[in-house]
Amino acid sequence: MDKAESWLYKTLHYRFEDAGLFEDAGLLNQALTHRSATGRNNERLEFLGDAVLDLVISDAVYRARPEAPEGDLSRLRSSLVKEKTLAALAAELGVGDYLILGSGEKKTGGHRRESILADALESIVGAVFLDGGIEAATEIIERVFAQRLDDLPAADQLRDPKTRLQEWLQGRGRGLPEYELVNISGQAHRQMFEVSCSVDETASVTHGTSTTRRKAEQKAAAEMLAILLENQT
Amino acid sequence: MDKAESWLYKTLHYRFEDAGLFEDAGLLNQALTHRSATGRNNERLEFLGDAVLDLVISDAVYRARPEAPEGDLSRLRSSLVKEKTLAALAAELGVGDYLILGSGEKKTGGHRRESILADALESIVGAVFLDGGIEAATEIIERVFAQRLDDLPAADQLRDPKTRLQEWLQGRGRGLPEYELVNISGQAHRQMFEVSCSVDETASVTHGTSTTRRKAEQKAAAEMLAILLENQT
Repeated sequence: MDKAESWLYKTLHYRFEDAGLFEDAGLLNQALTHRSATGRNNERLEFLGDAVLDLVISDAVYRARPEAPEGDLSRLRSSLVKEKTLAALAAELGVGDYLILGSGEKKTGGHRRESILADALESIVGAVFLDGGIEAATEIIERVFAQRLDDLPAADQLRDPKTRLQEWLQGRGRGLPEYELVNISGQAHRQMFEVSCSVDETASVTHGTSTTRRKAEQKAAAEMLAILLENQT
Repeated sequence: MDKAESWLYKTLHYRFEDAGLFEDAGLLNQALTHRSATGRNNERLEFLGDAVLDLVISDAVYRARPEAPEGDLSRLRSSLVKEKTLAALAAELGVGDYLILGSGEKKTGGHRRESILADALESIVGAVFLDGGIEAATEIIERVFAQRLDDLPAADQLRDPKTRLQEWLQGRGRGLPEYELVNISGQAHRQMFEVSCSVDETASVTHGTSTTRRKAEQKAAAEMLAILLENQT
Protein backbone atom coordinates (compact mmCIF):
# COMPACT_ATOMS: atom_id res chain seq x y z
CA MET A 1 0.00 0.00 0.00
CA ASP A 2 1.25 3.49 -0.69
CA LYS A 3 0.97 6.28 1.91
CA ALA A 4 -2.50 7.45 0.89
CA GLU A 5 -3.83 3.89 0.88
CA SER A 6 -2.49 3.25 4.39
CA TRP A 7 -4.07 6.48 5.59
CA LEU A 8 -7.45 5.56 4.09
CA TYR A 9 -7.28 2.11 5.61
CA LYS A 10 -6.42 3.53 9.02
CA THR A 11 -9.03 6.30 9.03
CA LEU A 12 -11.92 4.78 7.06
CA HIS A 13 -11.10 1.07 7.17
CA TYR A 14 -11.32 0.79 3.42
CA ARG A 15 -8.83 -0.97 1.21
CA PHE A 16 -9.05 -0.54 -2.54
CA GLU A 17 -9.39 -3.67 -4.61
CA ASP A 18 -8.16 -1.93 -7.68
CA ALA A 19 -5.20 0.31 -7.07
CA GLY A 20 -4.25 0.60 -10.71
CA LEU A 21 -7.38 0.60 -12.83
CA PHE A 22 -6.17 3.60 -14.77
CA GLU A 23 -2.88 3.79 -16.53
CA ASP A 24 -1.55 6.76 -14.61
CA ALA A 25 -2.58 5.92 -11.06
CA GLY A 26 -5.04 4.13 -8.87
CA LEU A 27 -8.52 5.38 -8.08
CA LEU A 28 -7.51 6.80 -4.71
CA ASN A 29 -4.71 8.82 -6.25
CA GLN A 30 -7.10 10.11 -8.85
CA ALA A 31 -9.55 11.10 -6.11
CA LEU A 32 -6.84 13.11 -4.38
CA THR A 33 -5.69 14.88 -7.54
CA HIS A 34 -6.94 18.45 -7.86
CA ARG A 35 -7.39 19.80 -11.36
CA SER A 36 -4.43 22.16 -10.79
CA ALA A 37 -2.10 19.13 -10.93
CA THR A 38 -1.17 17.24 -14.06
CA GLY A 39 -2.63 13.82 -14.76
CA ARG A 40 -6.11 12.51 -14.35
CA ASN A 41 -7.88 14.72 -11.82
CA ASN A 42 -10.79 14.09 -9.50
CA GLU A 43 -13.53 16.06 -11.24
CA ARG A 44 -15.33 13.04 -12.71
CA LEU A 45 -15.08 11.12 -9.44
CA GLU A 46 -16.45 14.14 -7.61
CA PHE A 47 -19.45 14.19 -9.96
CA LEU A 48 -20.17 10.58 -9.06
CA GLY A 49 -19.30 10.86 -5.36
CA ASP A 50 -21.57 13.86 -4.92
CA ALA A 51 -24.53 11.78 -6.11
CA VAL A 52 -23.56 8.80 -3.94
CA LEU A 53 -23.23 11.03 -0.89
CA ASP A 54 -26.54 12.69 -1.60
CA LEU A 55 -28.36 9.38 -1.73
CA VAL A 56 -26.75 7.87 1.35
CA ILE A 57 -27.40 11.01 3.40
CA SER A 58 -30.95 11.36 2.03
CA ASP A 59 -31.64 7.79 3.06
CA ALA A 60 -30.13 8.30 6.52
CA VAL A 61 -32.14 11.48 7.11
CA TYR A 62 -35.32 9.86 5.77
CA ARG A 63 -34.97 7.00 8.25
CA ALA A 64 -33.86 9.19 11.15
CA ARG A 65 -36.92 11.43 10.85
CA PRO A 66 -39.88 9.23 9.93
CA GLU A 67 -42.42 11.98 10.51
CA ALA A 68 -40.60 15.03 9.17
CA PRO A 69 -42.04 16.80 6.14
CA GLU A 70 -39.99 16.93 2.96
CA GLY A 71 -38.83 20.51 3.55
CA ASP A 72 -37.22 19.54 6.84
CA LEU A 73 -35.52 16.55 5.23
CA SER A 74 -34.08 18.82 2.53
CA ARG A 75 -32.74 21.25 5.09
CA LEU A 76 -31.21 18.48 7.17
CA ARG A 77 -29.56 16.98 4.12
CA SER A 78 -28.24 20.36 2.97
CA SER A 79 -26.71 21.02 6.37
CA LEU A 80 -24.79 17.73 6.09
CA VAL A 81 -23.62 17.82 2.49
CA LYS A 82 -22.83 21.51 2.13
CA GLU A 83 -19.27 22.47 1.31
CA LYS A 84 -18.54 23.82 4.79
CA THR A 85 -19.49 20.55 6.49
CA LEU A 86 -17.64 18.41 3.95
CA ALA A 87 -14.52 20.56 4.26
CA ALA A 88 -14.61 20.27 8.06
CA LEU A 89 -14.98 16.49 7.86
CA ALA A 90 -12.19 16.25 5.29
CA ALA A 91 -9.93 18.30 7.55
CA GLU A 92 -10.75 16.11 10.56
CA LEU A 93 -9.77 13.05 8.51
CA GLY A 94 -6.53 14.69 7.43
CA VAL A 95 -7.31 14.64 3.70
CA GLY A 96 -5.23 17.78 3.22
CA ASP A 97 -1.97 15.90 3.81
CA TYR A 98 -2.61 13.62 0.86
CA LEU A 99 -3.92 16.05 -1.74
CA ILE A 100 -2.08 16.22 -5.04
CA LEU A 101 -2.04 19.87 -6.08
CA GLY A 102 -0.42 21.97 -8.77
CA SER A 103 2.46 24.15 -7.62
CA GLY A 104 0.35 27.31 -7.63
CA GLU A 105 -2.31 25.81 -5.37
CA LYS A 106 0.36 24.35 -3.12
CA LYS A 107 1.95 27.74 -2.56
CA THR A 108 -1.32 29.49 -1.82
CA GLY A 109 -2.50 26.97 0.77
CA GLY A 110 -4.72 24.85 -1.46
CA HIS A 111 -4.54 21.92 0.96
CA ARG A 112 -6.56 23.96 3.44
CA ARG A 113 -9.04 25.47 0.94
CA GLU A 114 -12.61 24.45 1.76
CA SER A 115 -13.70 23.80 -1.81
CA ILE A 116 -10.68 21.60 -2.55
CA LEU A 117 -11.11 19.60 0.66
CA ALA A 118 -14.84 19.12 0.12
CA ASP A 119 -14.35 18.07 -3.49
CA ALA A 120 -11.64 15.59 -2.51
CA LEU A 121 -13.90 13.97 0.08
CA GLU A 122 -16.68 13.60 -2.50
CA SER A 123 -14.14 12.16 -4.94
CA ILE A 124 -12.97 9.59 -2.40
CA VAL A 125 -16.60 8.55 -1.98
CA GLY A 126 -16.90 8.26 -5.76
CA ALA A 127 -13.72 6.19 -5.94
CA VAL A 128 -14.89 3.80 -3.21
CA PHE A 129 -18.26 3.50 -4.97
CA LEU A 130 -16.54 2.50 -8.23
CA ASP A 131 -14.22 0.12 -6.44
CA GLY A 132 -16.51 -1.50 -3.89
CA GLY A 133 -20.05 -0.62 -4.88
CA ILE A 134 -22.79 1.18 -3.01
CA GLU A 135 -22.39 -0.96 0.14
CA ALA A 136 -18.74 0.00 0.55
CA ALA A 137 -19.50 3.65 -0.15
CA THR A 138 -22.37 3.62 2.34
CA GLU A 139 -20.09 2.17 5.00
CA ILE A 140 -17.44 4.85 4.68
CA ILE A 141 -20.03 7.63 4.51
CA GLU A 142 -21.72 6.37 7.66
CA ARG A 143 -18.32 6.22 9.31
CA VAL A 144 -17.40 9.77 8.26
CA PHE A 145 -20.80 11.21 9.24
CA ALA A 146 -21.39 9.06 12.35
CA GLN A 147 -21.11 11.93 14.83
CA ARG A 148 -23.08 14.35 12.62
CA LEU A 149 -25.88 11.83 12.14
CA ASP A 150 -26.00 11.11 15.87
CA ASP A 151 -26.23 14.84 16.61
CA LEU A 152 -28.76 15.62 13.89
CA PRO A 153 -30.24 19.01 14.78
CA ALA A 154 -33.95 19.50 15.33
CA ALA A 155 -35.26 20.22 11.85
CA ASP A 156 -36.87 23.50 12.86
CA GLN A 157 -33.50 24.85 13.98
CA LEU A 158 -32.52 24.86 10.32
CA ARG A 159 -35.42 26.96 9.13
CA ASP A 160 -34.53 30.54 8.46
CA PRO A 161 -35.40 33.18 11.08
CA LYS A 162 -38.30 34.68 9.08
CA THR A 163 -39.94 31.28 8.75
CA ARG A 164 -39.37 30.45 12.41
CA LEU A 165 -40.73 33.81 13.54
CA GLN A 166 -43.83 33.33 11.40
CA GLU A 167 -44.38 29.81 12.71
CA TRP A 168 -43.90 30.93 16.30
CA LEU A 169 -46.50 33.68 15.89
CA GLN A 170 -48.98 31.48 14.02
CA GLY A 171 -48.65 28.79 16.67
CA ARG A 172 -49.91 31.39 19.15
CA GLY A 173 -52.68 32.72 16.95
CA ARG A 174 -50.93 36.02 16.42
CA GLY A 175 -50.67 38.10 13.25
CA LEU A 176 -47.84 38.06 10.72
CA PRO A 177 -44.78 40.23 11.30
CA GLU A 178 -44.36 43.32 9.19
CA TYR A 179 -41.13 44.24 7.47
CA GLU A 180 -40.40 47.73 6.28
CA LEU A 181 -37.48 49.08 4.33
CA VAL A 182 -36.21 51.93 6.47
CA ASN A 183 -33.11 53.05 4.70
CA ILE A 184 -30.77 52.37 1.80
CA SER A 185 -27.26 53.73 2.08
CA GLY A 186 -24.02 53.44 0.16
CA GLN A 187 -23.21 53.63 -3.51
CA ALA A 188 -24.73 51.48 -6.22
CA HIS A 189 -23.46 47.86 -6.09
CA ARG A 190 -22.37 48.41 -2.47
CA GLN A 191 -25.71 49.35 -1.00
CA MET A 192 -26.73 48.51 2.55
CA PHE A 193 -30.38 47.88 3.33
CA GLU A 194 -31.91 48.58 6.70
CA VAL A 195 -35.18 46.86 7.48
CA SER A 196 -37.45 47.05 10.51
CA CYS A 197 -39.55 44.20 11.85
CA SER A 198 -42.63 44.78 13.97
CA VAL A 199 -45.19 42.46 15.45
CA ASP A 200 -48.81 43.16 16.42
CA GLU A 201 -49.37 44.09 20.02
CA THR A 202 -45.68 44.25 20.73
CA ALA A 203 -44.05 47.53 21.46
CA SER A 204 -40.62 46.43 20.32
CA VAL A 205 -39.38 47.01 16.81
CA THR A 206 -36.18 45.33 15.67
CA HIS A 207 -33.82 46.33 12.90
CA GLY A 208 -31.50 44.47 10.56
CA THR A 209 -28.92 45.84 8.14
CA SER A 210 -27.25 43.90 5.36
CA THR A 211 -26.21 43.87 1.72
CA THR A 212 -29.59 42.61 0.50
CA ARG A 213 -33.07 43.40 1.62
CA ARG A 214 -33.76 39.73 2.26
CA LYS A 215 -30.73 39.29 4.49
CA ALA A 216 -31.65 42.43 6.42
CA GLU A 217 -35.15 41.02 6.99
CA GLN A 218 -33.68 37.76 8.28
CA LYS A 219 -31.53 39.66 10.76
CA ALA A 220 -34.45 41.72 11.98
CA ALA A 221 -36.57 38.57 12.28
CA ALA A 222 -33.85 36.75 14.25
CA GLU A 223 -33.68 39.62 16.72
CA MET A 224 -37.45 39.77 17.09
CA LEU A 225 -37.58 36.03 17.70
CA ALA A 226 -34.90 36.32 20.37
CA ILE A 227 -36.91 39.05 22.16
CA LEU A 228 -40.15 37.07 21.99
CA LEU A 229 -38.51 33.87 23.25
CA GLU A 230 -36.87 35.76 26.09
CA ASN A 231 -40.08 37.49 27.13
CA GLN A 232 -42.13 34.31 27.23
CA THR A 233 -40.04 32.74 29.99
CA MET B 1 -52.88 -6.78 -6.64
CA ASP B 2 -54.86 -3.59 -6.93
CA LYS B 3 -55.09 -1.68 -10.20
CA ALA B 4 -51.99 0.45 -9.66
CA GLU B 5 -49.93 -2.58 -8.68
CA SER B 6 -51.00 -4.48 -11.81
CA TRP B 7 -50.11 -1.48 -13.94
CA LEU B 8 -46.65 -1.18 -12.35
CA TYR B 9 -46.04 -4.87 -12.82
CA LYS B 10 -47.08 -4.70 -16.46
CA THR B 11 -45.11 -1.56 -17.33
CA LEU B 12 -42.05 -1.82 -15.10
CA HIS B 13 -42.04 -5.49 -14.11
CA TYR B 14 -41.89 -4.63 -10.46
CA ARG B 15 -44.02 -6.18 -7.76
CA PHE B 16 -44.00 -4.64 -4.30
CA GLU B 17 -43.09 -6.91 -1.44
CA ASP B 18 -44.73 -4.67 1.04
CA ALA B 19 -48.08 -3.40 -0.12
CA GLY B 20 -49.26 -2.27 3.29
CA LEU B 21 -46.28 -1.00 5.27
CA PHE B 22 -48.18 2.11 6.27
CA GLU B 23 -51.51 2.10 7.99
CA ASP B 24 -53.34 4.04 5.33
CA ALA B 25 -52.02 2.45 2.16
CA GLY B 26 -49.11 0.65 0.55
CA LEU B 27 -45.96 2.34 -0.66
CA LEU B 28 -47.15 2.49 -4.26
CA ASN B 29 -50.36 4.24 -3.29
CA GLN B 30 -48.39 6.70 -1.24
CA ALA B 31 -46.10 7.34 -4.21
CA LEU B 32 -49.13 8.14 -6.36
CA THR B 33 -50.73 10.47 -3.81
CA HIS B 34 -50.29 14.15 -4.56
CA ARG B 35 -50.24 16.53 -1.60
CA SER B 36 -53.62 17.91 -2.73
CA ALA B 37 -55.25 14.64 -1.67
CA THR B 38 -55.85 13.58 1.89
CA GLY B 39 -53.72 10.89 3.49
CA ARG B 40 -50.02 10.29 3.38
CA ASN B 41 -48.70 12.03 0.28
CA ASN B 42 -45.64 11.38 -1.86
CA GLU B 43 -43.44 14.31 -0.84
CA ARG B 44 -41.09 12.30 1.37
CA LEU B 45 -40.82 9.51 -1.21
CA GLU B 46 -40.08 12.09 -3.87
CA PHE B 47 -37.22 13.45 -1.72
CA LEU B 48 -35.71 9.97 -1.59
CA GLY B 49 -36.52 9.00 -5.18
CA ASP B 50 -34.93 12.15 -6.53
CA ALA B 51 -31.63 11.19 -4.88
CA VAL B 52 -31.87 7.57 -6.09
CA LEU B 53 -32.57 8.71 -9.63
CA ASP B 54 -29.72 11.18 -9.52
CA LEU B 55 -27.23 8.50 -8.52
CA VAL B 56 -28.39 5.87 -10.99
CA ILE B 57 -28.36 8.35 -13.87
CA SER B 58 -25.02 9.83 -12.76
CA ASP B 59 -23.54 6.35 -12.76
CA ALA B 60 -25.02 5.51 -16.17
CA VAL B 61 -23.71 8.74 -17.70
CA TYR B 62 -20.31 8.29 -16.05
CA ARG B 63 -19.95 4.85 -17.60
CA ALA B 64 -21.41 5.82 -20.98
CA ARG B 65 -18.90 8.65 -21.42
CA PRO B 66 -15.58 7.48 -20.00
CA GLU B 67 -13.68 10.42 -21.44
CA ALA B 68 -16.15 13.27 -20.95
CA PRO B 69 -15.22 16.12 -18.60
CA GLU B 70 -17.35 16.70 -15.52
CA GLY B 71 -19.23 19.61 -17.10
CA ASP B 72 -20.49 17.42 -19.91
CA LEU B 73 -21.56 14.73 -17.46
CA SER B 74 -23.54 17.31 -15.48
CA ARG B 75 -25.29 18.58 -18.59
CA LEU B 76 -26.12 15.06 -19.74
CA ARG B 77 -27.53 14.18 -16.33
CA SER B 78 -29.56 17.40 -16.17
CA SER B 79 -31.09 16.69 -19.56
CA LEU B 80 -32.26 13.30 -18.29
CA VAL B 81 -33.54 14.16 -14.82
CA LYS B 82 -35.11 17.55 -15.52
CA GLU B 83 -38.83 17.93 -14.90
CA LYS B 84 -39.71 18.02 -18.58
CA THR B 85 -38.03 14.69 -19.30
CA LEU B 86 -39.46 13.01 -16.20
CA ALA B 87 -42.95 14.28 -17.01
CA ALA B 88 -42.69 12.94 -20.57
CA LEU B 89 -41.52 9.54 -19.32
CA ALA B 90 -44.29 9.45 -16.69
CA ALA B 91 -46.86 10.26 -19.37
CA GLU B 92 -45.49 7.51 -21.65
CA LEU B 93 -45.86 5.03 -18.79
CA GLY B 94 -49.41 6.19 -18.12
CA VAL B 95 -48.75 7.38 -14.56
CA GLY B 96 -51.47 10.00 -14.94
CA ASP B 97 -54.23 7.38 -14.85
CA TYR B 98 -53.21 6.22 -11.39
CA LEU B 99 -52.53 9.52 -9.63
CA ILE B 100 -54.47 10.23 -6.46
CA LEU B 101 -55.32 13.92 -6.52
CA GLY B 102 -57.43 16.33 -4.50
CA SER B 103 -60.67 17.42 -6.13
CA GLY B 104 -59.29 20.84 -7.09
CA GLU B 105 -56.30 19.35 -8.89
CA LYS B 106 -58.53 16.77 -10.55
CA LYS B 107 -60.79 19.44 -12.03
CA THR B 108 -57.93 21.58 -13.32
CA GLY B 109 -56.17 18.72 -15.13
CA GLY B 110 -53.63 17.85 -12.45
CA HIS B 111 -53.11 14.38 -13.91
CA ARG B 112 -51.49 16.00 -16.93
CA ARG B 113 -49.47 18.64 -15.06
CA GLU B 114 -45.73 18.21 -15.67
CA SER B 115 -44.64 18.87 -12.09
CA ILE B 116 -47.14 16.39 -10.67
CA LEU B 117 -46.19 13.68 -13.18
CA ALA B 118 -42.46 14.19 -12.65
CA ASP B 119 -42.83 14.14 -8.86
CA ALA B 120 -44.91 10.96 -9.00
CA LEU B 121 -42.27 9.19 -11.10
CA GLU B 122 -39.57 10.16 -8.62
CA SER B 123 -41.82 8.99 -5.79
CA ILE B 124 -42.32 5.60 -7.44
CA VAL B 125 -38.55 5.28 -7.67
CA GLY B 126 -38.32 6.16 -3.96
CA ALA B 127 -40.98 3.60 -3.10
CA VAL B 128 -39.25 0.84 -5.08
CA PHE B 129 -35.96 1.77 -3.41
CA LEU B 130 -37.51 1.41 0.06
CA ASP B 131 -39.20 -1.82 -0.91
CA GLY B 132 -36.56 -3.57 -2.98
CA GLY B 133 -33.32 -1.70 -2.38
CA ILE B 134 -30.96 0.02 -4.79
CA GLU B 135 -30.81 -2.97 -7.17
CA ALA B 136 -34.58 -2.96 -7.74
CA ALA B 137 -34.62 0.82 -8.13
CA THR B 138 -31.73 0.69 -10.59
CA GLU B 139 -33.57 -1.91 -12.64
CA ILE B 140 -36.74 0.11 -13.02
CA ILE B 141 -34.80 3.32 -13.74
CA GLU B 142 -32.79 1.59 -16.45
CA ARG B 143 -36.03 0.26 -17.89
CA VAL B 144 -37.71 3.68 -17.86
CA PHE B 145 -34.68 5.45 -19.31
CA ALA B 146 -33.55 2.68 -21.70
CA GLN B 147 -34.35 4.60 -24.87
CA ARG B 148 -33.01 7.91 -23.51
CA LEU B 149 -29.76 6.27 -22.42
CA ASP B 150 -29.37 4.57 -25.79
CA ASP B 151 -29.91 7.87 -27.57
CA LEU B 152 -27.71 9.93 -25.26
CA PRO B 153 -26.94 13.14 -27.16
CA ALA B 154 -23.39 14.19 -27.93
CA ALA B 155 -22.37 16.18 -24.87
CA ASP B 156 -21.46 19.27 -26.88
CA GLN B 157 -25.01 19.44 -28.22
CA LEU B 158 -26.09 20.36 -24.70
CA ARG B 159 -23.74 23.29 -24.33
CA ASP B 160 -25.39 26.63 -24.80
CA PRO B 161 -24.96 28.44 -28.13
CA LYS B 162 -22.55 31.08 -26.76
CA THR B 163 -20.24 28.37 -25.42
CA ARG B 164 -20.48 26.36 -28.62
CA LEU B 165 -19.79 29.39 -30.79
CA GLN B 166 -16.76 30.28 -28.67
CA GLU B 167 -15.42 26.71 -28.81
CA TRP B 168 -15.96 26.52 -32.55
CA LEU B 169 -14.01 29.75 -33.08
CA GLN B 170 -11.21 28.83 -30.67
CA GLY B 171 -10.85 25.44 -32.35
CA ARG B 172 -10.04 27.32 -35.54
CA GLY B 173 -7.72 29.84 -33.93
CA ARG B 174 -10.15 32.70 -34.44
CA GLY B 175 -10.99 35.56 -32.10
CA LEU B 176 -13.86 35.72 -29.62
CA PRO B 177 -17.29 36.87 -30.80
CA GLU B 178 -18.44 40.32 -29.77
CA TYR B 179 -21.87 41.01 -28.34
CA GLU B 180 -23.37 44.48 -28.31
CA LEU B 181 -26.59 45.72 -26.81
CA VAL B 182 -28.34 47.38 -29.73
CA ASN B 183 -31.70 48.34 -28.32
CA ILE B 184 -33.97 48.12 -25.31
CA SER B 185 -37.67 48.52 -25.94
CA GLY B 186 -40.87 48.17 -23.97
CA GLN B 187 -41.89 49.36 -20.53
CA ALA B 188 -40.06 48.56 -17.31
CA HIS B 189 -40.54 44.89 -16.24
CA ARG B 190 -41.54 44.05 -19.81
CA GLN B 191 -38.41 45.13 -21.59
CA MET B 192 -37.08 43.45 -24.70
CA PHE B 193 -33.34 43.39 -25.32
CA GLU B 194 -31.82 43.31 -28.79
CA VAL B 195 -28.23 42.18 -29.05
CA SER B 196 -25.92 41.87 -32.03
CA CYS B 197 -23.20 39.28 -32.45
CA SER B 198 -20.22 39.80 -34.70
CA VAL B 199 -17.16 37.73 -35.41
CA ASP B 200 -13.72 38.83 -36.63
CA GLU B 201 -13.21 38.65 -40.36
CA THR B 202 -16.83 37.80 -40.97
CA ALA B 203 -19.05 40.27 -42.68
CA SER B 204 -22.25 38.90 -41.19
CA VAL B 205 -23.72 40.27 -38.03
CA THR B 206 -26.56 38.40 -36.36
CA HIS B 207 -29.21 39.69 -33.98
CA GLY B 208 -31.20 38.22 -31.14
CA THR B 209 -34.11 39.69 -29.22
CA SER B 210 -35.44 38.42 -25.91
CA THR B 211 -36.64 39.32 -22.43
CA THR B 212 -33.14 39.26 -20.97
CA ARG B 213 -29.83 40.35 -22.33
CA ARG B 214 -28.37 36.89 -21.78
CA LYS B 215 -31.13 35.17 -23.71
CA ALA B 216 -30.79 37.65 -26.55
CA GLU B 217 -27.06 36.92 -26.71
CA GLN B 218 -27.76 33.18 -26.88
CA LYS B 219 -30.13 33.70 -29.78
CA ALA B 220 -27.64 35.86 -31.66
CA ALA B 221 -24.90 33.29 -30.99
CA ALA B 222 -27.08 30.41 -32.23
CA GLU B 223 -27.75 32.26 -35.46
CA MET B 224 -24.07 33.08 -35.95
CA LEU B 225 -23.11 29.45 -35.35
CA ALA B 226 -25.68 28.32 -37.93
CA ILE B 227 -24.21 30.69 -40.52
CA LEU B 228 -20.64 29.61 -39.81
CA LEU B 229 -21.51 25.92 -39.96
CA GLU B 230 -23.40 26.39 -43.20
CA ASN B 231 -20.57 28.34 -44.82
CA GLN B 232 -17.89 25.79 -43.93
CA THR B 233 -19.47 23.01 -45.98
